[in-house]
Amino acid sequence: MYNFTFQIPTRINFGKGQISHLSELKESGNKVLMVYGGGSIKRSGIYDEAMKILKEAGLEVFELSGVEPNPRIESVRKGVEICKENCIDMVLAIGGGSVIDCAKVVAGGAKYEGDPWDLVIAPAKIKAALPVYSVLTLAATGSEMDTFAVISDMSKNEKWGTGSPLFTPKMSVLDPTYTFTVSQKQTAAGTADMMSHTFENYFTSVEGFLQARFCEAVLKTCIKYGPIAYNDPENYEARANLMWASSWAINGTLNAGSGVAWCVHPMEHELSAFYDITHGQGLAILTPHWMRYVLSENTVDKFVEYGVNVWGIDEKLDKFEIANKAIDMTADFFKNELHIPMTLREVGITEKTNFEIMAEKAANGCKGCYVPLSKEDIIKIFEAAF
Amino acid sequence: MYNFTFQIPTRINFGKGQISHLSELKESGNKVLMVYGGGSIKRSGIYDEAMKILKEAGLEVFELSGVEPNPRIESVRKGVEICKENCIDMVLAIGGGSVIDCAKVVAGGAKYEGDPWDLVIAPAKIKAALPVYSVLTLAATGSEMDTFAVISDMSKNEKWGTGSPLFTPKMSVLDPTYTFTVSQKQTAAGTADMMSHTFENYFTSVEGFLQARFCEAVLKTCIKYGPIAYNDPENYEARANLMWASSWAINGTLNAGSGVAWCVHPMEHELSAFYDITHGQGLAILTPHWMRYVLSENTVDKFVEYGVNVWGIDEKLDKFEIANKAIDMTADFFKNELHIPMTLREVGITEKTNFEIMAEKAANGCKGCYVPLSKEDIIKIFEAAF
Repeated sequence: MYNFTFQIPTRINFGKGQISHLSELKESGNKVLMVYGGGSIKRSGIYDEAMKILKEAGLEVFELSGVEPNPRIESVRKGVEICKENCIDMVLAIGGGSVIDCAKVVAGGAKYEGDPWDLVIAPAKIKAALPVYSVLTLAATGSEMDTFAVISDMSKNEKWGTGSPLFTPKMSVLDPTYTFTVSQKQTAAGTADMMSHTFENYFTSVEGFLQARFCEAVLKTCIKYGPIAYNDPENYEARANLMWASSWAINGTLNAGSGVAWCVHPMEHELSAFYDITHGQGLAILTPHWMRYVLSENTVDKFVEYGVNVWGIDEKLDKFEIANKAIDMTADFFKNELHIPMTLREVGITEKTNFEIMAEKAANGCKGCYVPLSKEDIIKIFEAAF
Repeated sequence: MYNFTFQIPTRINFGKGQISHLSELKESGNKVLMVYGGGSIKRSGIYDEAMKILKEAGLEVFELSGVEPNPRIESVRKGVEICKENCIDMVLAIGGGSVIDCAKVVAGGAKYEGDPWDLVIAPAKIKAALPVYSVLTLAATGSEMDTFAVISDMSKNEKWGTGSPLFTPKMSVLDPTYTFTVSQKQTAAGTADMMSHTFENYFTSVEGFLQARFCEAVLKTCIKYGPIAYNDPENYEARANLMWASSWAINGTLNAGSGVAWCVHPMEHELSAFYDITHGQGLAILTPHWMRYVLSENTVDKFVEYGVNVWGIDEKLDKFEIANKAIDMTADFFKNELHIPMTLREVGITEKTNFEIMAEKAANGCKGCYVPLSKEDIIKIFEAAF
């Protein structure tokens, strides 16, 4: 186990009706910028409810709407402008990870002189940020309890992750009933996203034993409840467990003390940056191919651990048999339980033209990871997934 | 899953050499009360190292030493007096859970007009506290990352748990090498203590699936590394995993959203209050008898989950066979792997005179728990453990 520093300062209010805690935003001032997406929060009534609570608490509310599923720098710039013009005190995201990610960079941009894209490509420039709050409506990215944000500049086919402790939400409302209306597609993609976050932490050569068992706990929760939520969208236990798992997959617990460098996410970010596909679908497509590509005499024991502890495969089998079975079961789960299209072609990437440039960019992010991948390796993984 | 509010504000600095972070205490003022136990931190050199860092950071250090293994209200009173007389800004505990617990109540008492025992029996009276810091030297109680403290008044045979978010340490240093010198007896007792904290959260009728899997992660860590640390005290991975597990067993993660009321701890607190036995040994002695006593048609499924997921017992066996085997394996682990004396007689409780009064007091704490226990039930458990 490596040395580490650990802190999760976010105050979580979890459960039905916890939106009432929005009155606590008074602790950070009077003017709030509410950030949201395409308007589903208006149809579901969350918008009206939040507005009522905020106004009753005496807060003045400004709005940034229309944040995209892969949130764009243009939305961030718009939000920053509103903040600067109106001396906003805090940012409240109501939505999924995209909305929260956008809100975080808006919060940083509001305290930064230059263009907010600087904060995306150079996190060290984040020296201050407005307080961030969130009301989560989609269990997936874990942005409600972490330091990270991913922003795209589609004009340049760029999608980068940034982050700062200053971005960690001060308080997040996690009401599982808000995810009852999440579509089957998004429920599946969200589950794949959390599983991928967990895999990125689990497959490491320097680990903590406890942390690895925590990873398995998150994976088992996704495997149990992903399909239940997919088939029975108003199942509270399923939605609650997935929502809480989404936060834990990336709040810093699973990687504390481990030698973790992410690998599949950098590859997927290129797919989204070039083709604007659904992030969780891209991850589900790449993951089994990545697993198969990195499986070797050096890594097989970790795959055995995965197969036995997560999928309950008989530990007495041959180790490569266990490893391959575990990978098959992972692919099968995404395909047959979560009904995710499992080839790049099916999600609209119909030509290989950009494989080389995407692989080159992704390779920058895959240097220190579990099994380091070169541009050539990544092209092979893209081709296998095609 | 129930609604819950969750926050772990403690900044953890984990690993070798992290004591250097004590310089951060400057954030809370200039005068620090250092609280410690019987002097083992002087022999090990931690005292000198801490003193050097604190002084170099410009802090003025006051001392409260001699805190007992089951910390007593008299020590708390002494600490409060030092704080009040010298306008102390913060309290730094260097030691195990007893020392940290004592420091917490000192921190509360310093901001309270009356006698600090009030804060032990009526936690609602804790309205303010000095900031608390800790350097952990024993993996067991989890006090380094939680809100709780347990204090005894031996003159009245009283031992009570109290707590407040204000008691949560602001920063804790967890250096596993500081536990290399922990005796076999204390290593075993500490492991039993963490396991017991986890059992108290695991055996519940309303649970979160994810939280239950987290419990299993902590239990598996104790089962793997408890014996390794016992037999090979300088094994860093063992000490590191146990240390981190001790924090997670009680930092609020395992019980968030679950219907938890503790049961074995209240029984053990009576044993310690009357006989001053080692807390973790008392827990190890009582736990298997408590398990056997509450095993029934209503609870057997939970014991099956425990047996299959934690001990790897074949799930195809009869459910009561699995449950009983799991309980046997628990008792066997404490006895043969951790070498804990497994009867009350062996730890010096040689007569049954106080069973009735202890059971009556414990029963107050066992009303809402997994299987509610009356005074009569508790007497039977004490007798089985005799």
